[in-house]
Amino acid sequence: MKKLRLGVIGTGRIGKVHIATLVQSVPQADVIAIADVNSTSASEVAGAFGISTVFTNYEDIINHPDVEAVVICSPTDTHARYITEAAQAGKHIFCEKPVDLTLGVIQAALTEVEKAGVKLMVGFNRRFDPNFLKIKQLVEEGKIGDPHILKITSRDPAPPPAEYSAVSGGMFMDMTIHDFDMARYIAGSEVTEVYTNAAVLVDPEIGKAGDVDTAIITLTFANGAIGVIDNSRKAVYGYDQRVEIFGSKGMACADNNYPENHRYFAADGVHGSLPLNFFMERYLEAYANEMKIFCNAVVNDLPLPVSGDDGLKSVAIAMAAKKSFLEHRPVKLSEVLNVN
Amino acid sequence: MKKLRLGVIGTGRIGKVHIATLVQSVPQADVIAIADVNSTSASEVAGAFGISTVFTNYEDIINHPDVEAVVICSPTDTHARYITEAAQAGKHIFCEKPVDLTLGVIQAALTEVEKAGVKLMVGFNRRFDPNFLKIKQLVEEGKIGDPHILKITSRDPAPPPAEYSAVSGGMFMDMTIHDFDMARYIAGSEVTEVYTNAAVLVDPEIGKAGDVDTAIITLTFANGAIGVIDNSRKAVYGYDQRVEIFGSKGMACADNNYPENHRYFAADGVHGSLPLNFFMERYLEAYANEMKIFCNAVVNDLPLPVSGDDGLKSVAIAMAAKKSFLEHRPVKLSEVLNVN
Amino acid sequence: MKKLRLGVIGTGRIGKVHIATLVQSVPQADVIAIADVNSTSASEVAGAFGISTVFTNYEDIINHPDVEAVVICSPTDTHARYITEAAQAGKHIFCEKPVDLTLGVIQAALTEVEKAGVKLMVGFNRRFDPNFLKIKQLVEEGKIGDPHILKITSRDPAPPPAEYSAVSGGMFMDMTIHDFDMARYIAGSEVTEVYTNAAVLVDPEIGKAGDVDTAIITLTFANGAIGVIDNSRKAVYGYDQRVEIFGSKGMACADNNYPENHRYFAADGVHGSLPLNFFMERYLEAYANEMKIFCNAVVNDLPLPVSGDDGLKSVAIAMAAKKSFLEHRPVKLSEVLNVN
Amino acid sequence: MKKLRLGVIGTGRIGKVHIATLVQSVPQADVIAIADVNSTSASEVAGAFGISTVFTNYEDIINHPDVEAVVICSPTDTHARYITEAAQAGKHIFCEKPVDLTLGVIQAALTEVEKAGVKLMVGFNRRFDPNFLKIKQLVEEGKIGDPHILKITSRDPAPPPAEYSAVSGGMFMDMTIHDFDMARYIAGSEVTEVYTNAAVLVDPEIGKAGDVDTAIITLTFANGAIGVIDNSRKAVYGYDQRVEIFGSKGMACADNNYPENHRYFAADGVHGSLPLNFFMERYLEAYANEMKIFCNAVVNDLPLPVSGDDGLKSVAIAMAAKKSFLEHRPVKLSEVLNVN
Repeated sequence: MKKLRLGVIGTGRIGKVHIATLVQSVPQADVIAIADVNSTSASEVAGAFGISTVFTNYEDIINHPDVEAVVICSPTDTHARYITEAAQAGKHIFCEKPVDLTLGVIQAALTEVEKAGVKLMVGFNRRFDPNFLKIKQLVEEGKIGDPHILKITSRDPAPPPAEYSAVSGGMFMDMTIHDFDMARYIAGSEVTEVYTNAAVLVDPEIGKAGDVDTAIITLTFANGAIGVIDNSRKAVYGYDQRVEIFGSKGMACADNNYPENHRYFAADGVHGSLPLNFFMERYLEAYANEMKIFCNAVVNDLPLPVSGDDGLKSVAIAMAAKKSFLEHRPVKLSEVLNVN
Repeated sequence: MKKLRLGVIGTGRIGKVHIATLVQSVPQADVIAIADVNSTSASEVAGAFGISTVFTNYEDIINHPDVEAVVICSPTDTHARYITEAAQAGKHIFCEKPVDLTLGVIQAALTEVEKAGVKLMVGFNRRFDPNFLKIKQLVEEGKIGDPHILKITSRDPAPPPAEYSAVSGGMFMDMTIHDFDMARYIAGSEVTEVYTNAAVLVDPEIGKAGDVDTAIITLTFANGAIGVIDNSRKAVYGYDQRVEIFGSKGMACADNNYPENHRYFAADGVHGSLPLNFFMERYLEAYANEMKIFCNAVVNDLPLPVSGDDGLKSVAIAMAAKKSFLEHRPVKLSEVLNVN
Repeated sequence: MKKLRLGVIGTGRIGKVHIATLVQSVPQADVIAIADVNSTSASEVAGAFGISTVFTNYEDIINHPDVEAVVICSPTDTHARYITEAAQAGKHIFCEKPVDLTLGVIQAALTEVEKAGVKLMVGFNRRFDPNFLKIKQLVEEGKIGDPHILKITSRDPAPPPAEYSAVSGGMFMDMTIHDFDMARYIAGSEVTEVYTNAAVLVDPEIGKAGDVDTAIITLTFANGAIGVIDNSRKAVYGYDQRVEIFGSKGMACADNNYPENHRYFAADGVHGSLPLNFFMERYLEAYANEMKIFCNAVVNDLPLPVSGDDGLKSVAIAMAAKKSFLEHRPVKLSEVLNVN
Repeated sequence: MKKLRLGVIGTGRIGKVHIATLVQSVPQADVIAIADVNSTSASEVAGAFGISTVFTNYEDIINHPDVEAVVICSPTDTHARYITEAAQAGKHIFCEKPVDLTLGVIQAALTEVEKAGVKLMVGFNRRFDPNFLKIKQLVEEGKIGDPHILKITSRDPAPPPAEYSAVSGGMFMDMTIHDFDMARYIAGSEVTEVYTNAAVLVDPEIGKAGDVDTAIITLTFANGAIGVIDNSRKAVYGYDQRVEIFGSKGMACADNNYPENHRYFAADGVHGSLPLNFFMERYLEAYANEMKIFCNAVVNDLPLPVSGDDGLKSVAIAMAAKKSFLEHRPVKLSEVLNVN
């Protein structure tokens, strides 16, 4: 089996997920080097997964002669720069979302990728979740008919620290961005307008940091369908990730995943377990599928299922959602796309 | 058992439902007379349910000395007038929704009711559905904590004739009005603002008649919660009526009802029956509960669970929803309430 | 609508169920008289349901010139006698199960019915439950293919008083008899052999009374299929009534019914309501269907869906089950049928 | 992390499963050598999983100085011999079920294990399935109270070749043996008596080979509970593996696992995916858990959760089940245990 030699930049939470996945579940992957400015973190991860080469400087990954593809898991504000440099070095690229918080910066990076002729995939892992893949398949098979209403529920078990909002770009940019991508993916159409009704109901500190923690976001699609995303930073019962698509021929919905399927019948009611707690549990299989597809596509020169443009569009929708919230009115995507 | 002597005005679809319910399922009810301008319809219904007195003139019901309470099931444009006259005649009143399409007219009728000191209940039957009663109970018991997000899905199996829209006031007024009432009921708070994203996706004739057939309506509540209703005039799989309430302590959802609970496992998948087809099947128990509560409350001089103000508020929200759709912006309830 | 004039004998628990059903839910039924040796009970029931004629002597029902059909809800030891006398009086008959505890007595009664040319239906109401009707339909449509394995779970919420066992003939005769009928009905084949593994696990008093309260009964059918019934006199979570049929083309199962379909997600798990508590709640619709079919069949001279032979066979299987338990070995139905 | 150096004997279907699991999912495992009489198979597997040492002779594994534990995945008739030799060589042992088809042979091997003081675990992987672990946990927490009724459904998607029956010992020994172990495990009590009702309904060739393909097996436990297992060699809808335990305080059931949780609502009904197809999909996590526990227990000198006696008991129950079928009567375990 031809393998892909990878270098991973960033060994934080998501970096560890990808490294573990690549090492344990992707036979086509060969992680030959990892880098992190935090050398302790990098060394620990390298030790745990048997990776021999460790750098503190990301450039050592990008310029490493044996590295064929770079996996970018560093903070958001470095993504566009690393994409640009990796592209210029002729490396294929997997980059975590969001690509950047500014559309112009994203566009410049994508131009470099195109110029270099390398492959770029953005990390919208949920597209590879078996539940959502099934919903997408039903849409594509025409089982739903013309899509009319798309509904996404996406709630986290607990909010990140309030100070994270400033760094991350806020809830729409760090959390809902996955749902924006999912909306485009399932509806099979571009979002043309957004209206946001949001509030601070979970934690006042989040509000003080200028962010929201609860939202209902209405979407209009180019194909005429309409959609709605509801978000919360804190569902006490765990990670809540559901999708529903309704159309002229039927409706399909995907429920959460559970650790097991028991039910317990006692005198006081019927009881079951909570859904899988968070993205590490729920999207384990999605992460593995994502990396398998990335490695296989690069090795065999196949098209990638998530493009740089997908990364750009989801950021644009997040910006429109924020603008809608701040200006208390529906915002067209064109307003956001044109100014950048 | 003390019984309530009732007269029913209107023997159309909903009139028949109420008469059947009162005769067959409400031991406290004694339907002594019915009236319909269509004497054939009235006679048929009277025969089917063993009611001896039939009128073509509604006034004969309102002025009948033995009638203690009037059930108004005639067309919407007669509701306010009949309420007013029944109140002036000292009769208790059950009136179908909507009370009227104009807030001023409703207000005038409610003033007469108050002046007369009679009881008035508006027909929001879904409040008495066992599923939604259970959700309401969980909210009231504090099991949800502070409500954050309310979601209502309400889809009909097939649209009414396009020409019906003109008479009915359109989808928001004839269909979503139930959901507006449910939203206020479950959230336990008033709606303060509405934003409507709607479209004609089911049948262009509906659009030509100036109405919509598909909608996502975002709500803001006085208590800080936010909500969303999604509607379609045509779900090919039948009547879809679900509610979900999410808050600081948990989430509760009510699914559809099914004719039975079988599952069939074949080589091509797992299969089950469709939900109950329409409101006559789904809300059978709700209609019975509604009428039992109305009759019992009148007989024993108890407060009624749905007030005239509930009838007025749901109409106001429907008006705001329409205005939001037409003006493509969020509309405050106060804009609608203050002009009337 | 042509109506059937009925007289009901017995106003105990099941008598009340049938009278209420006939009066409230069966338009073709006209209950013109009821009888009970307990005149207080009879009068109360008559008052509650508006029945004008009340007797203490069952013969007054059977000989009443206006009574066309007799509904027998008296104690088991009177069933065969009343059937015989009603048949001789030319009345059609609905009789509760079991027909009798002795096969010879049943056979004699059935001979009288046949001689008189009247219709007889035995009260296996569960055949008319929508869940089980659906399972039967799937079998008849060939969706299951050749049946291989039939499973019935049947558990009561609480045991009857231990002394009831002596009167009733014990668990197999008063409770499992419904499951034996269901087994024959769903499998579409006769039971040829029975093996019983039973125990006293709920209440030692039941054991002292010579009965059991927990059982697993294996069945062999003439068509080659095999089956199993599991019973308990006490399920703390309520009434548990499920059926599963497995065959060459698929499997169908019917779950319990619930008062509503909510689910509550809290930090400690997912919770729902218990199944409907007992037969009065679960089989309400089945009782109505049963009586509608009986009345309609008599009025229009149609065949009845549960015959006297069905009544006899279920008693024979109950006897074989008891014999298997006592003799600790599989017992052929022919052993039981031939000695009587 | 201290690792366990393992040698695997047998690279057939189950051997491959264990090797893949050990290499990919068990960080504590270090598979240093594998052996198979079929050198082609062994080489292929070694290549696929990066194992450097390959033998055709099992003795090279058992006598390998670096091997600390032997995983026996060879045909059943070699198990006892390899256990014996491995024990004598001082190796810890994991052995696939059944240990042997003869109780005396098993007993002799267990004696050698005891004499050598090595650890032995028998491969009842289903005990480590998250669904069944949850059921077991509820039993142990007392949530079920005293167990009354245990039900196991275990159906394969397709039968093995008819000739396999002769080698394997037949359905009770190769398939139901898992259910016998599960019954003892969940009930927390020994089986004392068995009654088997079995048939050839799937494929006449299986009957010609002296085996059955469909069975209902009733169990009696030492603690007074009763149980039933139903088996089929062919469920057209896939692998069907469910457990239900009913007791004085409640009931718990474990459903099948599904590849995803979608539901599709169309005009002709509600549809979902089939359960996971077979043991490789359903018990993937169970196999990983099993091997993690084995490796960890050996490395840290902890007790193993499945003993040699567990292996012996399940074979004894299978023998009693076969005897019951052949002699058409309930068979006590003591009858089988005493003659060996």
